[in-house]
Amino acid sequence: MRKALLLSALFILIPSLANASSNGGGHDESHMALVLLFIGALLLVARVGAMAEKIGQPAVLGELLLGAALSAVVSVTGWQGIRHLLQDPAVLFCASVGVILLLFKTGLESNINDMLRVGLRALLVACVGVALPFIGGYVTSGLLMPDTTFNARLFIGATLTATSVGLTARVFDDLKIKDSREARIVLGAAVIDDVIGLIILAVVSGIVSSGSVSWSGGAWLLGKSVLFLGLALFLGTALAPKLTAAFSRIHEGVGMKMAIALMFCFGLAYASVALVGLAPIVGAFAAGLVLDHVHFRQFSSEKNVEDLIEGIAIFFVPIFFVYTGLQVDLTVFQDLALVGNAIAITMVAIVGKVLCGFVSGPGTNHWLVGFGMVPRGEVGLIFLAMGKQLNVVNDRIFAMGVIMVMLSTLLTPPILTVIIRRQSPRAIV
Amino acid sequence: MRKALLLSALFILIPSLANASSNGGGHDESHMALVLLFIGALLLVARVGAMAEKIGQPAVLGELLLGAALSAVVSVTGWQGIRHLLQDPAVLFCASVGVILLLFKTGLESNINDMLRVGLRALLVACVGVALPFIGGYVTSGLLMPDTTFNARLFIGATLTATSVGLTARVFDDLKIKDSREARIVLGAAVIDDVIGLIILAVVSGIVSSGSVSWSGGAWLLGKSVLFLGLALFLGTALAPKLTAAFSRIHEGVGMKMAIALMFCFGLAYASVALVGLAPIVGAFAAGLVLDHVHFRQFSSEKNVEDLIEGIAIFFVPIFFVYTGLQVDLTVFQDLALVGNAIAITMVAIVGKVLCGFVSGPGTNHWLVGFGMVPRGEVGLIFLAMGKQLNVVNDRIFAMGVIMVMLSTLLTPPILTVIIRRQSPRAIV
Repeated sequence: MRKALLLSALFILIPSLANASSNGGGHDESHMALVLLFIGALLLVARVGAMAEKIGQPAVLGELLLGAALSAVVSVTGWQGIRHLLQDPAVLFCASVGVILLLFKTGLESNINDMLRVGLRALLVACVGVALPFIGGYVTSGLLMPDTTFNARLFIGATLTATSVGLTARVFDDLKIKDSREARIVLGAAVIDDVIGLIILAVVSGIVSSGSVSWSGGAWLLGKSVLFLGLALFLGTALAPKLTAAFSRIHEGVGMKMAIALMFCFGLAYASVALVGLAPIVGAFAAGLVLDHVHFRQFSSEKNVEDLIEGIAIFFVPIFFVYTGLQVDLTVFQDLALVGNAIAITMVAIVGKVLCGFVSGPGTNHWLVGFGMVPRGEVGLIFLAMGKQLNVVNDRIFAMGVIMVMLSTLLTPPILTVIIRRQSPRAIV
Repeated sequence: MRKALLLSALFILIPSLANASSNGGGHDESHMALVLLFIGALLLVARVGAMAEKIGQPAVLGELLLGAALSAVVSVTGWQGIRHLLQDPAVLFCASVGVILLLFKTGLESNINDMLRVGLRALLVACVGVALPFIGGYVTSGLLMPDTTFNARLFIGATLTATSVGLTARVFDDLKIKDSREARIVLGAAVIDDVIGLIILAVVSGIVSSGSVSWSGGAWLLGKSVLFLGLALFLGTALAPKLTAAFSRIHEGVGMKMAIALMFCFGLAYASVALVGLAPIVGAFAAGLVLDHVHFRQFSSEKNVEDLIEGIAIFFVPIFFVYTGLQVDLTVFQDLALVGNAIAITMVAIVGKVLCGFVSGPGTNHWLVGFGMVPRGEVGLIFLAMGKQLNVVNDRIFAMGVIMVMLSTLLTPPILTVIIRRQSPRAIV
């Protein structure tokens, strides 16, 4: 009863803020304070969502669902104020920092040698996990909607390829199995399929705009990406101890330790976007893999670098997931024919990735790897947006893609929980 | 030598980012990553600035000076990219969060009863510290510049009134004397003079625009501010244990603890801007005073709330100070006649506040309180901007005000350090 009251209070609070925002305008300090309050409210919503843990689900599921519920309230009541707040650059910034820090933290907690040990398996899983959904999406969209063009089918296939690694990393973290071989394979494969997805996008866009396949363009992207990741990992590993030692001579306090770690993270995140065109999370993950406790042994602080990043991540990461939930537009579910097709495409998207789990090799839980690869996210949506720009993807196909992203994101946490619970009932107390 | 190399590397890095930014444009993900990298660079600059500690100065002095040095490099070379980055909403957001969290942290570390115990003293210090600089500024500007109008002199006087509490709080923190009676008096007086400054601004603006004094407007503002602070402190103290207990039943983890604390902070910060028109830091400080360890005893986490906020503040706070340093526009020092007048006004601003330290009562170091009240900041600049809008303050007076803010900000940390060192040589190892 009290919980219900508290929750209602939150839902009353936020719209009234939103109104205040749309009335206010202009005054900078007041707007900034409102954005901060909104971020505080998102954090509180996230923590209320963490109630999911009480029914054995990962906290991230609650964050996503409460975000989606809030989004439904907004779309039913039409409060424009919240929409304005959601588009505020500072909110978007916090959400982006959230996912970047999450991948950095994941990388920090992983070990580069352990990752390389699963490298070939991850490559295999990634390739199968890209090929099957791509082919499946192409064929299924042709069967379901015979009027779609060849180009549209290509885009639908491409949209199904890239795993959204953030969600899986969070679920593995929530369920405390991020040190497993399965988790390493999934993380590695997700980074690799981001690269493959990028190449597919370039090739598909090339086919659509020129009518022919540009093998050289694809090869150049592949080379650039592999070179970047290779350089980041090997140069990073070589330079990290020297850089940290040099900066520790300037100041050996806890603040410097954090500043260097974040510079590594943000620097590689920026490089991966600006130099190669990969997602910033790929660079952040690489930065995390490169850095290690031992690099910071010259510092006087008793806090290790994971704890420092965790202290900041606890602020930013939940914002990303509630924000992601808030992007869910439930009105697309009103068109039943469209929903039917979208569910079929989603099934293909899920089955394609689940099957790739079966090449993860002996001694691994194939279902865990397969479902770990299922969530799709912003990369798929970028493909759709690109297709729309090129006049290949229409509004209906776009909505189907959005439903696929939503379902794959919302279904993965509970399914992974069941798989893990069956495997070892003690793992999720 | 190595330090010099590292520093040069930073200074080469940032302009090249800046160029990348101005060439890039458009692409959102890449811009976001660039902003992040810039923030990482600001953090690293801040930590290099912390070298000031090696010569017995507070870290914040180094942060401000390096910020100012960077600003000089930018203004000499004319790199527009950095200027764009500085005006980016996300950077401004991080700086604002920094000063808000700093005051919240300061409030958390203070005790409301200890603060109330020095309440009357703080009120006295605040009143004298507002009256003397106001009268001094009015008289001095008349003597130095006989051609200034009555209205302009009023605005110059008003600009000198409000202490920027953030800087002093940081210096007291850096020098580890934030638990002293002097620190409490200064913090209390700074909050009070923010309220008085607000009223003066309203009254002065009224005089300028209508030609007559609006006593009722001033009284209404005073009443509203006192009511707000009173309600925030007493209602907050009564409700905090109940709210934390209720939310601890939803989730008793470390994330919820942080979310509630931040909601308190951001909520009161917003209320102080939106309801009363006070600076958000006033509300944040009140929120910190209200919250206490004991309110969180239902939570399972071993980390106390100060540590949690410290973990986030370590990211945001240095950004605020480097950002403040970057606002310094050294080109105003080129006009020597103007600099002469500005130095005279600054002397008045300093002497007025130092004298108010002498009413801080027996058993306190008057110099410490007086110089603690010296730094001026954004409130003074807001007065100047308002005066410019009303066509009362011209560009020269504006530049003088900026010099006064800069000097008072840069001189305070070393002077406070000397005072504290004389008082107890052990306090700053």
